[in-house]
Amino acid sequence: MKKKAVILFSGGLDSTTVLYYAMSKKYDCHCLIFDYGQKHKKEVKNAAKIAKSLGLVSQTVRIKLPWDKSALTDKTVNIPNHKIIKKGFVPPTYVPGRNTIFLSYAISYAETIKADAIFLGINAVDFSSYPDCTGQYLHAMQSVTKALKNKITIHAPIEHFSKAQIIKMGMKLKVPYEKTWTCYSGTKKPCGICDSCKLRAKGFEEVGRDDPALQ
Amino acid sequence: MKKKAVILFSGGLDSTTVLYYAMSKKYDCHCLIFDYGQKHKKEVKNAAKIAKSLGLVSQTVRIKLPWDKSALTDKTVNIPNHKIIKKGFVPPTYVPGRNTIFLSYAISYAETIKADAIFLGINAVDFSSYPDCTGQYLHAMQSVTKALKNKITIHAPIEHFSKAQIIKMGMKLKVPYEKTWTCYSGTKKPCGICDSCKLRAKGFEEVGRDDPALQ
Repeated sequence: MKKKAVILFSGGLDSTTVLYYAMSKKYDCHCLIFDYGQKHKKEVKNAAKIAKSLGLVSQTVRIKLPWDKSALTDKTVNIPNHKIIKKGFVPPTYVPGRNTIFLSYAISYAETIKADAIFLGINAVDFSSYPDCTGQYLHAMQSVTKALKNKITIHAPIEHFSKAQIIKMGMKLKVPYEKTWTCYSGTKKPCGICDSCKLRAKGFEEVGRDDPALQ
Repeated sequence: MKKKAVILFSGGLDSTTVLYYAMSKKYDCHCLIFDYGQKHKKEVKNAAKIAKSLGLVSQTVRIKLPWDKSALTDKTVNIPNHKIIKKGFVPPTYVPGRNTIFLSYAISYAETIKADAIFLGINAVDFSSYPDCTGQYLHAMQSVTKALKNKITIHAPIEHFSKAQIIKMGMKLKVPYEKTWTCYSGTKKPCGICDSCKLRAKGFEEVGRDDPALQ
């Protein structure tokens, strides 16, 4: 029987690469998409579209955090555009507990469909200042599934990759980057100035390719 | 400054006792209530009412698990009434990942309001067959907050208590048990036959008191 996996999927560059990676490892992939009131709501529909185009099952879960005042969800807090994310500084785009909430839903979904694995596009290089993107954090979440005795393993295949390394891996896996959406802003086209856009641009620059989403 | 705590609060016998315990330890308590589509939806309003009567802040979060088919939420699955919960058997009332989802929201809320602690009414005695009610599980969740570096400690003061011991503690703390709602069924009055009602009745019987909610 084919192994089953739940993929935390936003339809962005990272999680789409992770999805293609899991498919290349012969997992039957089930995409879990989150609508958490993000300004870049576009990614929710875009993610479902990518999953559908691949003939995959996807579930979209709505999350409302009444107390969240992060730059990703609160209209009164601006998406930072003055500098790229720096080490040791938790940026205003950090949504408290976000990855823990995402993973807890993934555990619930994975337990229900009896999945063997959860894949996520967590990255300890570019997002080193997010406390929920570290190896220690992943290890702790793995100890939770161990305690739950559900045998679900958590995989973060791009954890130690730079953006350029992620793109290189994705190109080998034929990830359709033109379909992926990375920008944090709610604009029609990628803004080009938010942290997320800048990191993506830097990655494509380093591999010496044009970003197909900007063609 | 007063210590701050987030309480996972359902307005039931266990979590109300835990709330009173945290208040007795001089915590400024913030109640976190979950509407997860439970048949006994009554508990959501009841919990908010108890919090309000104590002058406490409460937040109600709506959770929808499209894949959940547990007896607590799925109308096509009956609440078991034939026997009390037994060791080693995960009952149909187990909602996959439920406590992990609850705790992840609590972590998000606690990080936002800079709380020192999270309290929950997890119990390893009566609910020993729930994989998310064990010491190993709590320890794993504590390692998550440690990894997140938020200094939030997780407290489960009734973890090793029998129902009778919980009631004894609650009586000392003057918990108004007549206001608490425990029953799993969606009935107007406690059904008296679900696992939850039976455990509660057994507890009051053991301490030699009548359940004030049934007066």
